[in-house]
Amino acid sequence: MKITFVGLGNMGAPMARNLLKAGHQLTVYDLVPPAVAALVAAGASAAKSLREAAGGAELLITMLPSSPHVRAAYLGADGLLAGVAPGVLLVDSSTIDPQSAREVAAAAAAHGNPMADAPVSGGTGGAAAGTLTFMVGATPEIFARIQPVLAQMGKNIVHCGASGNGQVAKICNNLLLAISMIGVSECMNLGAALGIDPKVLAGIINTSSGRCWSSDTYNPYPGVMEGVPAARGYTGGFGADLMLKDLGLALDAAKHTKQPVVLGAAAQQLYQMFSARGAGAEDFSAIIKLYMAGQTS
Amino acid sequence: MKITFVGLGNMGAPMARNLLKAGHQLTVYDLVPPAVAALVAAGASAAKSLREAAGGAELLITMLPSSPHVRAAYLGADGLLAGVAPGVLLVDSSTIDPQSAREVAAAAAAHGNPMADAPVSGGTGGAAAGTLTFMVGATPEIFARIQPVLAQMGKNIVHCGASGNGQVAKICNNLLLAISMIGVSECMNLGAALGIDPKVLAGIINTSSGRCWSSDTYNPYPGVMEGVPAARGYTGGFGADLMLKDLGLALDAAKHTKQPVVLGAAAQQLYQMFSARGAGAEDFSAIIKLYMAGQTS
Amino acid sequence: MKITFVGLGNMGAPMARNLLKAGHQLTVYDLVPPAVAALVAAGASAAKSLREAAGGAELLITMLPSSPHVRAAYLGADGLLAGVAPGVLLVDSSTIDPQSAREVAAAAAAHGNPMADAPVSGGTGGAAAGTLTFMVGATPEIFARIQPVLAQMGKNIVHCGASGNGQVAKICNNLLLAISMIGVSECMNLGAALGIDPKVLAGIINTSSGRCWSSDTYNPYPGVMEGVPAARGYTGGFGADLMLKDLGLALDAAKHTKQPVVLGAAAQQLYQMFSARGAGAEDFSAIIKLYMAGQTS
Amino acid sequence: MKITFVGLGNMGAPMARNLLKAGHQLTVYDLVPPAVAALVAAGASAAKSLREAAGGAELLITMLPSSPHVRAAYLGADGLLAGVAPGVLLVDSSTIDPQSAREVAAAAAAHGNPMADAPVSGGTGGAAAGTLTFMVGATPEIFARIQPVLAQMGKNIVHCGASGNGQVAKICNNLLLAISMIGVSECMNLGAALGIDPKVLAGIINTSSGRCWSSDTYNPYPGVMEGVPAARGYTGGFGADLMLKDLGLALDAAKHTKQPVVLGAAAQQLYQMFSARGAGAEDFSAIIKLYMAGQTS
Repeated sequence: MKITFVGLGNMGAPMARNLLKAGHQLTVYDLVPPAVAALVAAGASAAKSLREAAGGAELLITMLPSSPHVRAAYLGADGLLAGVAPGVLLVDSSTIDPQSAREVAAAAAAHGNPMADAPVSGGTGGAAAGTLTFMVGATPEIFARIQPVLAQMGKNIVHCGASGNGQVAKICNNLLLAISMIGVSECMNLGAALGIDPKVLAGIINTSSGRCWSSDTYNPYPGVMEGVPAARGYTGGFGADLMLKDLGLALDAAKHTKQPVVLGAAAQQLYQMFSARGAGAEDFSAIIKLYMAGQTS
Repeated sequence: MKITFVGLGNMGAPMARNLLKAGHQLTVYDLVPPAVAALVAAGASAAKSLREAAGGAELLITMLPSSPHVRAAYLGADGLLAGVAPGVLLVDSSTIDPQSAREVAAAAAAHGNPMADAPVSGGTGGAAAGTLTFMVGATPEIFARIQPVLAQMGKNIVHCGASGNGQVAKICNNLLLAISMIGVSECMNLGAALGIDPKVLAGIINTSSGRCWSSDTYNPYPGVMEGVPAARGYTGGFGADLMLKDLGLALDAAKHTKQPVVLGAAAQQLYQMFSARGAGAEDFSAIIKLYMAGQTS
Repeated sequence: MKITFVGLGNMGAPMARNLLKAGHQLTVYDLVPPAVAALVAAGASAAKSLREAAGGAELLITMLPSSPHVRAAYLGADGLLAGVAPGVLLVDSSTIDPQSAREVAAAAAAHGNPMADAPVSGGTGGAAAGTLTFMVGATPEIFARIQPVLAQMGKNIVHCGASGNGQVAKICNNLLLAISMIGVSECMNLGAALGIDPKVLAGIINTSSGRCWSSDTYNPYPGVMEGVPAARGYTGGFGADLMLKDLGLALDAAKHTKQPVVLGAAAQQLYQMFSARGAGAEDFSAIIKLYMAGQTS
Repeated sequence: MKITFVGLGNMGAPMARNLLKAGHQLTVYDLVPPAVAALVAAGASAAKSLREAAGGAELLITMLPSSPHVRAAYLGADGLLAGVAPGVLLVDSSTIDPQSAREVAAAAAAHGNPMADAPVSGGTGGAAAGTLTFMVGATPEIFARIQPVLAQMGKNIVHCGASGNGQVAKICNNLLLAISMIGVSECMNLGAALGIDPKVLAGIINTSSGRCWSSDTYNPYPGVMEGVPAARGYTGGFGADLMLKDLGLALDAAKHTKQPVVLGAAAQQLYQMFSARGAGAEDFSAIIKLYMAGQTS
């Protein structure tokens, strides 16, 4: 299949490589020449412009940093919609606000191009291993058509409903994840201060009503689990600044829909405070350091 | 076994009944005559005073509303320690602050009585069905001795470490539970406002990193799950005012150990705000109503 | 002086009237015909388009609801900059984000038009009475030139520094105002619950370190002061939804500058929760109702 | 007048000295010998026990660290009530919870001793200069009798209503003060990040609706005011840990009266977080450092 892939950053590059491995004929585009060169060395063709990249594709995938990038790439005068043939499927895997996703998809539809939003979770590790989760917002027909290709880059391809709902699922999940992670941090730290062995406490919580992914799979308290960022100085994993970005999207969406998110807002501010200490590049579970006396990042 | 059971409220009465069913010779005490009469009708003997209740027991169990009650019952001039024979095991299943639990246990030890704190979770339903979880703070020796009896009232008997740690586990778990429940409420409500089907959203979260007990087992959003309080008008379950009480214990413990609990404090205030609306008797998952426009309790 | 005034809403209309009273030759523009008709009846001329409105003006003033309106009005293909003569002074009195204010001012400067941001406080009452406060972001030269005209619509004309700083002052002040108002609400309510006479408490605070405008000039507790919204069922004054809008601007600005604003975020969410109860049209001091048992809006 | 003064700490010692200067015959008591010796050197007599200290007094004043100290000092078997003659006036200037103040006052009344709670503000500087503010909870008769003596130690002697209301006024004021100080910190920091001169911003706020004592008298932003802790490295003033103590009293009182205090709870946690960084001895306005990137205490 002739696929065009736009956006070869930390996530996009390994995703594109997996499409090459799967045997697709890949055209790539990025503003950073070495990123393009690396993919060309792996067998892809380079396009000189977005418009050119879009021409000839049977499927077009984008992986960009933020809403303005996505809007510009698709809607710009020399952008993807200007170059793509009607009927070609479009997939945006960027994590952006649902409203923008829906607006771009509506513009694509008006141009004759079915479009899906398909943000991912799983990090750079999952991108390289091809084990990402894709949260897809699209009609059932579009979903059915893109599912096989997404499955070459990921393990779980989840249909979240109509256009924009992939983004909704992503930011709602991460809103809850941030709250849970801080909740586990407060809980573990309080327990330790009160004299219980953190491992014992985690064991009890994990079989009780406090059970959550942040506790049983990704516990932030040092020494409780192996193989998690807390066991390796909070390196690797999902960076605190990326969580802060997603919280920003969730809080913006809450503002626009007039939904209160009290703990979500507090979580955003705590991550902001943490990031302001210069620790934004650490794994997001390092937020527990805010709660530890004498700990600095 | 000759067991004395003090405190025949909504939790204590069904727990005591399960001990009768298990064949123990039970002496009971409570300030409310009908509560005593009901147990006597079921085969228990009534004691006229705490001191009398404590005499002759081989094991003494208390289930009381708060720290002052526990302190008074054990340490009062005519209290349990005044009447109990040295060597008799003491088990307090009340949910109280760890510091009080440790002080009463120390006083008991000075009197020659090994003591365990063993607060429960599982609610009145679990108390009646004998499926409670007991979180036990005691030496391994004491734990080994009381475990078989607790197993006649509960399903999971968890050793949490030394004296007081049963209380620590209970309040830390419930601190996290309150945060998670509010987090799920914010997440589900935001998602619905953004246009995703709440059932679909819950399904995605439950297999992703936002997964937690409040989402996959006790989802507060109406229509997402069956058999939960949200499916029956938030009746039954674990009352919001009980959660508020446990949050009070957690926040007090945090204050005394000088641990920040930012989300925990917000959760406490939200439950306080909810309770002030007159909704404290509803299930604690009804906190989601704070987030729903036009919803009053 | 030939002045063009764009935006004849609740604030803009009385401001424009005061310019008429001061003897200026006024051209007006608004999308709502009756709003235009009312000013024409008072002596203004109506323009048929933004571009036409801008032509011939010696000074151009806008009073619009939000950033997108301001951007569109000035920067649109048929907008104000397209019609205005180089050198004409531009004043935007809308409350918008500082970044947008600076970008529009830069575009105006590139077109040869000096521009000031001059958001106001004082409400519709102040607009009618000509007692508004103007917070002005502009060079000293621009400030000196527009100050006399602004003084015909307001009482305090404050120079806040360079372009955008009028907006900065406005949103920072209102951020603090929202926090103070909620703080006073919590303080007064707690005091009343603890048995002190609210009037006595307010009197003490107002001469002590808790003193603030929300307490000594605009106390939200019913019965403490006369002539404030709390004395007339929270009608009149500064609407809760307007405060919510300004908090949104402040929180967005905080996000973009990566500044934590923990209490500010909580204040935003509490106003959102209050607004979701359907009370957004009440005065912003009615937020105290969130804290009063049994109170609904 | 024969006055007994109990509690010669940082506040009590200079207060007692002012009574000596005013010509009273002073008996003092404290557990720390050098504190007693210093007052004896200044002309006071030392009592060997609380009971002895209470005997012979015409007025008895206490200044102690917390509720348990006050309860023990008055109600202990060998405490002040055991030694004082009926009819002697009692004044407790400690800052404690209103409930304890009322209980001790009730016990004193039962013993025939009228009692007032009279906590102070003004810090050690005010105590030395005799410029404290006393917030007095007592009947008008008691207030009238003690007012002249308190006026020898303070400048503002405020009658707050019946027993306990001095404490209520103190903790409610300080609750609001903490919220305001953090609000000002967020506001000033955000403004600076957005490019306004902090001095200009403070000037605008101080004449606008954000005006408050924390902004116009005690501004925490470095360089805005002279003569405040922010101008001398946050030394002197009112320590963050003392504010944390008062927030603890306010939050406890809120819990017991079932009043939500959402911002108050957040303020408490932020001060707790600040204190956990080892900065509790700095002035409470140093909380602004939590908001400054790269700032550590």
